[in-house]
Amino acid sequence: MAQNIYDNPAFFEGYAQLPRSVQGLDGAPEWAALKSMLPDLSGKSVIDLGCGYGWFCRVAREMGASDVTGIDISEKMLARAAELTNDANIRYQRSDLESLHLDENSLDLVYSSLALHYLPELDTLFAKVQRALKPGGSLVFSMEHPIYTCATRQGWLTDDSGARFWGVNQYQQEGQRVSNWLAEGVIKYHRTLGTTLNALIGAGLTLAEVNEWGPTQGQIDAWPALAEEAERPMLVLIAARKAQ
Amino acid sequence: MAQNIYDNPAFFEGYAQLPRSVQGLDGAPEWAALKSMLPDLSGKSVIDLGCGYGWFCRVAREMGASDVTGIDISEKMLARAAELTNDANIRYQRSDLESLHLDENSLDLVYSSLALHYLPELDTLFAKVQRALKPGGSLVFSMEHPIYTCATRQGWLTDDSGARFWGVNQYQQEGQRVSNWLAEGVIKYHRTLGTTLNALIGAGLTLAEVNEWGPTQGQIDAWPALAEEAERPMLVLIAARKAQ
Repeated sequence: MAQNIYDNPAFFEGYAQLPRSVQGLDGAPEWAALKSMLPDLSGKSVIDLGCGYGWFCRVAREMGASDVTGIDISEKMLARAAELTNDANIRYQRSDLESLHLDENSLDLVYSSLALHYLPELDTLFAKVQRALKPGGSLVFSMEHPIYTCATRQGWLTDDSGARFWGVNQYQQEGQRVSNWLAEGVIKYHRTLGTTLNALIGAGLTLAEVNEWGPTQGQIDAWPALAEEAERPMLVLIAARKAQ
Repeated sequence: MAQNIYDNPAFFEGYAQLPRSVQGLDGAPEWAALKSMLPDLSGKSVIDLGCGYGWFCRVAREMGASDVTGIDISEKMLARAAELTNDANIRYQRSDLESLHLDENSLDLVYSSLALHYLPELDTLFAKVQRALKPGGSLVFSMEHPIYTCATRQGWLTDDSGARFWGVNQYQQEGQRVSNWLAEGVIKYHRTLGTTLNALIGAGLTLAEVNEWGPTQGQIDAWPALAEEAERPMLVLIAARKAQ
């Protein structure tokens, strides 16, 4: 079962300060790329797995979705989402993604932002998503890139010439990784990109786009700390479709 | 246009000593994985893009292929392939992969081993392959993994604790990389894995498998130098299909 780190007080407080928490999707530099992978949402049924404060749920409604469900494991996140939302066609539901029930043939879009790297395995969820999607429906999600997650110790190294490198090791050794991002002992799961893509294919979905996200030069100019995201991908954005 | 490094005397001599040159496919540790991605070859028309000594061409015939064409840019490699081959249903043809002509709807399998990272771009070739495949036909290929190819200086770094990491940088900066493997000035092209996968999808092919190859424990026991391939992928193996 996935850890509920978002209800850890230190993590929750730290997360609340991030640009993506304060400014919503405009504070997430990968949002433009992820948005470009979405289907037309007019009149569509949407679910957001790991909805956090509900930013995407509200934007999906602005983009024309008829009804949106936000799922999250964190009571605190959902309480804040409810405070920020005034829309009868958005509902929030507390669940972990492993015991989640999804009705068959009920959804046009399954969306998830930066949640799936908390799950020990994805085959079960992808099979559930495939059944829940209507024909032609989409799964669009982001997660941490395995280049970012894999190493025994995540970080940069410098060689004798002063050149900076992101350290990669244990890439083939899938499983738990513990990081200390915002709080001590945050548990994530490393999988090769191939494992994730093959899990989607194995669930009967067709891959539509794989974006190992990096910043544009304009984004780096506006937000210089993003330069390191051009050196190694931190995120991967993936779109897959169910056949018509 | 791709560099013809295989006709460089130093490179050719060095390449001739590699296990995969001396022992053929059994000397290539990724062969079992790549083989498992192939369709049934009985009675099928096959082409090998970058056939080298023709090892795969001969094995494809043993696996039942009715006719096999081996393409290579290197005169020396093709001369050696011809020496090793005694089969009227295998033909070798000298061409670079960029000016190669492929007849429409003529092939059941397009295969390529460790050649495509020498090409400046893949969109043109993948479009050509898609047209050349019969409905239900397959493209199965290996190439250097972008984690291996991307950095300004390819190699391992050690941190203060003695832990070893493969250095990754410039991942988002696609283009030429010069290495000194077997000879000075070997030109390869770095592309993100997403770029390669999206090029296949863009050409109208469906992704069937993505294998960021790593050795089995048995392979490491038998050939200890392979242990580093478990720390970071050097190769990626990809299978794509044309719709029926």
